[in-house]
Amino acid sequence: MYGGIEAGGTKIMCAAGTGPSDLHAQISFPTTTPTETIERIIAFFQQQRALPLVAIGIGSFGPIALHPHASNYGSITSTPKPGWANVDIVGPIGRALGVPVGFDTDTNAAALAEGRWGAAQDLTTFLYLTVGTGIGGGGVSNNQLIHGLLHPEMGHIRLPHDLQADPFPGVCPYHGDCLEGLASGPALLARWGAPGETLPSDHPAWALQAHYLALACVNFICTLSPERIILGGGVMNQSQLFPLIQREVQVLLGGYIQASVLLQQIDTYIVPPRLGKQAGMLGALVLAEQAASDPA
Amino acid sequence: MYGGIEAGGTKIMCAAGTGPSDLHAQISFPTTTPTETIERIIAFFQQQRALPLVAIGIGSFGPIALHPHASNYGSITSTPKPGWANVDIVGPIGRALGVPVGFDTDTNAAALAEGRWGAAQDLTTFLYLTVGTGIGGGGVSNNQLIHGLLHPEMGHIRLPHDLQADPFPGVCPYHGDCLEGLASGPALLARWGAPGETLPSDHPAWALQAHYLALACVNFICTLSPERIILGGGVMNQSQLFPLIQREVQVLLGGYIQASVLLQQIDTYIVPPRLGKQAGMLGALVLAEQAASDPA
Repeated sequence: MYGGIEAGGTKIMCAAGTGPSDLHAQISFPTTTPTETIERIIAFFQQQRALPLVAIGIGSFGPIALHPHASNYGSITSTPKPGWANVDIVGPIGRALGVPVGFDTDTNAAALAEGRWGAAQDLTTFLYLTVGTGIGGGGVSNNQLIHGLLHPEMGHIRLPHDLQADPFPGVCPYHGDCLEGLASGPALLARWGAPGETLPSDHPAWALQAHYLALACVNFICTLSPERIILGGGVMNQSQLFPLIQREVQVLLGGYIQASVLLQQIDTYIVPPRLGKQAGMLGALVLAEQAASDPA
Repeated sequence: MYGGIEAGGTKIMCAAGTGPSDLHAQISFPTTTPTETIERIIAFFQQQRALPLVAIGIGSFGPIALHPHASNYGSITSTPKPGWANVDIVGPIGRALGVPVGFDTDTNAAALAEGRWGAAQDLTTFLYLTVGTGIGGGGVSNNQLIHGLLHPEMGHIRLPHDLQADPFPGVCPYHGDCLEGLASGPALLARWGAPGETLPSDHPAWALQAHYLALACVNFICTLSPERIILGGGVMNQSQLFPLIQREVQVLLGGYIQASVLLQQIDTYIVPPRLGKQAGMLGALVLAEQAASDPA
């Protein structure tokens, strides 16, 4: 039995189980202060002690410190979320529950889950992008999560921005008009004066939104050569975005990359997640499984 | 003993050996027609028959067909280079020499060699970008070359392009002002009316060139999280570009990614190759070594 925690910036989801068809207990609650939030997480798993937990996995909002030898390993680092910068999340949970803890970003966790049970089964190289309060990406290359210096921060790539067509300066406090600055939920709200979910499906917001997400997909395709791109998160509940993005990716690529799935079946290439809002939490179970088999 | 072939769009380099300190024979000649070029490659290795060749590696200009089960595996595909589109390169060389053939892009080969003997030794995740007649990138993630749908085409990412500051439309026949369209050698020539190597080192061309390459590095950092970026190719012989790019990457990231190498030691993060013009050919020897150990 594994414990999985998706630590999102607004909500925590916890579950005990081994996968989507074997979940023994679940809870979700708002992300408040670090102390209160971590206490609630620990209390939930302590209540499950009838089930022998062998490991915990945490998929967290970021940026996070991932290098096992770093002095701040297991912490959330430079988040603008009040109170959460430089908070150790792995340490207190691991000590309280006495089991190994796997740790990664929420989007890398979601990518893992979609690879195991969802929209990227049997693929070796793919990416998962969540478009919501922020924009974050996780990815798998040759069956392994993309790490390296740190972890991907795909929401912060820079894109062409035609200031005449779209004078909106972007909302990213670090970069202004990076992808997240132009196309996150808060960017939609700030640009159009209303939350995205209140705009009609034929509102011009969506063509512009699809344009930026298509540019982002093109850059990810040229850099990572993924076999599929999964677009999730609250903004992608606007399902009219998918055909707009798919078509524009084809136009932007201009036939240069000769892969039949891009040229002829792009509706199977840029797809919604299959695991919906549970992807991050289910991916945390996979992180727990990995921690159990390699507790170092 | 391995055979290594770097098949570039303008020049072929072949060598027999096992690495930079063990090269028994080398040759280089211009890339002409496919038939003539492939015949010269085969003739070179047939002359080395005193040495028992156990495998050949080919690092080729692209795009190339890499999936072993594809009907066109081993071919160069949609290149604009006259006569070379849809040319099988692996087949005739493998049949003539009767040994296993490893095959990948020239830039993936160069990345492999820099990882083994050069500027990325001991790193697990890094990328190599060549800036010359074209712009191409190869990369390693978790010790494995980045593949997936096909292979990276990093030269074709889209970047912010301020048409007021730089009205140049770009030279890429597929995408106009993608990275390659804005910052390759032919783009420098077309924008400034003179080849890059004839422009003085304080010419405004270089600040603009550094700007586009810095934007590209930022996007690669946010997507792949490489531990190091190696910038090679003829244009990067302008060594004044390195400090300009390094500084602008820091400005563009705005301190968001808290890695000390980005914040404090960026001169060790964005670096020239150590193997120079031999990187692709040496990487082809590594591809040969891999083909010998896994002839499937």
